[in-house]
Amino acid sequence: MPKPILTLTTDFGLADHYVGVMKGVILGICPEAWIADISHEAAPFDIAEGAYLIAQAWKYFPKKTVHVVVVDPGVGSARRPILMEAGGHYFVAPDNGVLSMIYSREKHKIRLISAERYFRQPVSRTFHGRDVFAPVAAHVAQGVPAARMGRAIDDYLRPAFEKPQQTGKHMWNGRILKIDHFGNMVTNFHSADFPDLEKRDFLLTAGGRQIGVLARHYAEAGSGELFIIVGSSGYLEISGNQISAARETGCQSGGPVELNVW
Amino acid sequence: MPKPILTLTTDFGLADHYVGVMKGVILGICPEAWIADISHEAAPFDIAEGAYLIAQAWKYFPKKTVHVVVVDPGVGSARRPILMEAGGHYFVAPDNGVLSMIYSREKHKIRLISAERYFRQPVSRTFHGRDVFAPVAAHVAQGVPAARMGRAIDDYLRPAFEKPQQTGKHMWNGRILKIDHFGNMVTNFHSADFPDLEKRDFLLTAGGRQIGVLARHYAEAGSGELFIIVGSSGYLEISGNQISAARETGCQSGGPVELNVW
Amino acid sequence: MPKPILTLTTDFGLADHYVGVMKGVILGICPEAWIADISHEAAPFDIAEGAYLIAQAWKYFPKKTVHVVVVDPGVGSARRPILMEAGGHYFVAPDNGVLSMIYSREKHKIRLISAERYFRQPVSRTFHGRDVFAPVAAHVAQGVPAARMGRAIDDYLRPAFEKPQQTGKHMWNGRILKIDHFGNMVTNFHSADFPDLEKRDFLLTAGGRQIGVLARHYAEAGSGELFIIVGSSGYLEISGNQISAARETGCQSGGPVELNVW
Repeated sequence: MPKPILTLTTDFGLADHYVGVMKGVILGICPEAWIADISHEAAPFDIAEGAYLIAQAWKYFPKKTVHVVVVDPGVGSARRPILMEAGGHYFVAPDNGVLSMIYSREKHKIRLISAERYFRQPVSRTFHGRDVFAPVAAHVAQGVPAARMGRAIDDYLRPAFEKPQQTGKHMWNGRILKIDHFGNMVTNFHSADFPDLEKRDFLLTAGGRQIGVLARHYAEAGSGELFIIVGSSGYLEISGNQISAARETGCQSGGPVELNVW
Repeated sequence: MPKPILTLTTDFGLADHYVGVMKGVILGICPEAWIADISHEAAPFDIAEGAYLIAQAWKYFPKKTVHVVVVDPGVGSARRPILMEAGGHYFVAPDNGVLSMIYSREKHKIRLISAERYFRQPVSRTFHGRDVFAPVAAHVAQGVPAARMGRAIDDYLRPAFEKPQQTGKHMWNGRILKIDHFGNMVTNFHSADFPDLEKRDFLLTAGGRQIGVLARHYAEAGSGELFIIVGSSGYLEISGNQISAARETGCQSGGPVELNVW
Repeated sequence: MPKPILTLTTDFGLADHYVGVMKGVILGICPEAWIADISHEAAPFDIAEGAYLIAQAWKYFPKKTVHVVVVDPGVGSARRPILMEAGGHYFVAPDNGVLSMIYSREKHKIRLISAERYFRQPVSRTFHGRDVFAPVAAHVAQGVPAARMGRAIDDYLRPAFEKPQQTGKHMWNGRILKIDHFGNMVTNFHSADFPDLEKRDFLLTAGGRQIGVLARHYAEAGSGELFIIVGSSGYLEISGNQISAARETGCQSGGPVELNVW
């Protein structure tokens, strides 16, 4: 039997001991676990960025992987812990929309986690990653059936995450989902919604710069030039050849972009 | 038999190859090892911060875990390598106080590591993490009895780590142990030493700001407000609701705080 | 049989999901894999820094380790993927010189990776780490013979990586290979090429500062003093005792250094 795999996505950073502690708790419950970090650098309390990160990563892991997602500004308050099954994977997270970019696209079942016997006791008020999410995920990875964690619910949060809005016959207003390590700006324009862009006239405006070039790969464009590329995520990205598009345009995560297609 | 678990806590950062090299050395000796990072972002040469990180993390790992702690400004000099047994765990570190926040509280046995046959040869003058601490830890994880590493000693360093001092009938002077990724300021006031704070009048002063509110969780306080919380570590923390307390007060790690309780 | 080990060296950073995705792809193909990060903080597109990192780290891993190195400014263009065997290890990387600090010193065999059946399909234009390098490495780790990946070639890139140049009877011009987390400046002067330095007069000039002291370890020099040390890599490093040599001299990675030996 292959070993159980878990992933961690948080806004905890790597300077503190928090991520290490979650791994200790998981290994104590599920000694055969293999634990992979997705990212711990979601901007603090930025649920949308956490949602983007896990939505991009989960499907590349084997089925039965248990994904733990902790971007949790409401820790200690009434917000609820949930367990989702989708695409043959498991997801453990707070019910604050951090899984919404997955459950808005995938068939899913969501349960309210209420089986406190699987929590670490006593449950602190400030670190449910350690006391709730990690131990529940480890028990699921260890083989405890999802149904034992709590009843299915359908009143989980459905945030209006950043779909572009059509504001004219040829015009859509969107936003920057994420700026990556290379300064590539991932927009929320998905290539599936704008097919055949290479055969049409278009103009993407960001930070006062207008970009009308679609490149197939980074090296195709001239050095220092800005262009559009269909990123590995399927979203349109504003990129530069060996330059940071974000620095070039002065744009920030969450900022507006406008797309015109004729 | 469960696989051997090791943890790493250093001030090496993650940009260099040093941490990866230590993992390679460990896996060469103990091929079944699972290696968890606690943190590699202790401030360079900051023994107190390394001491805090491992003291917070170790007990969440299963028994028999071998913890490697390398914050080692004296590498290559006469400072000694030690192996500690405490709470059913093993710890390998330089004898410079980096384990003191554990051995000041836990029953322990400390050995001077002298069995050079377990070192990587030749031992460099600059990287004992690779040549001494990682290989010794890997051999212990692999089952070599602790007693083979060297004789028990009791003249290891006992630094005066940051206990608050009572400076008046109602007043204690303490300090900031660590500022975490969210800007929470962990003080060295432990909740066990100041019980029932929620029933008493108190005032914590830091960076010229006076804080008299004790919150049970981050979301309880008003947005932008500073408050005290008993952190997951048991220490009093100065926190803000979705703001950085450290930025708000201008305080830095190691800085002074004053607690008045009536 | 010991479990397969893979290492990852990239310029992806840890804030994005890219490294996590590569681990997911690897675990899907080679479920028993243990994956170690060397570094993901090579400067973006800096092939020389990637080359330095893997050259320093690989030999500390067990034989048969598969090293994946992705610093790949030419992704999507005509640059080729290669598989190298050297020293009993495997290396998967773009043919852009990022393995050159290894194949310039070690006996090696290099193959052009052409067996597309081992790629993830469809192959994107922007993320060969996920679609080419990770899956090929995982198949090799899983036991697919190297010869199945493609034919041996000998026209791979041979960049002129930063060897010092003798510019006078007693003078060599070199450069800074890497500035580490502690501000130590690794030069490209290898101790094997300048033996017995401790018995001779020498002067290393960097950023207008002249350094003529060779220390055996960091703690030997006076506090705040700059000195030369033979680093754990075998290269001469400019270091300071508990200070950052890089900050002290104002030097940057790639900057010039001059060595005079009499």
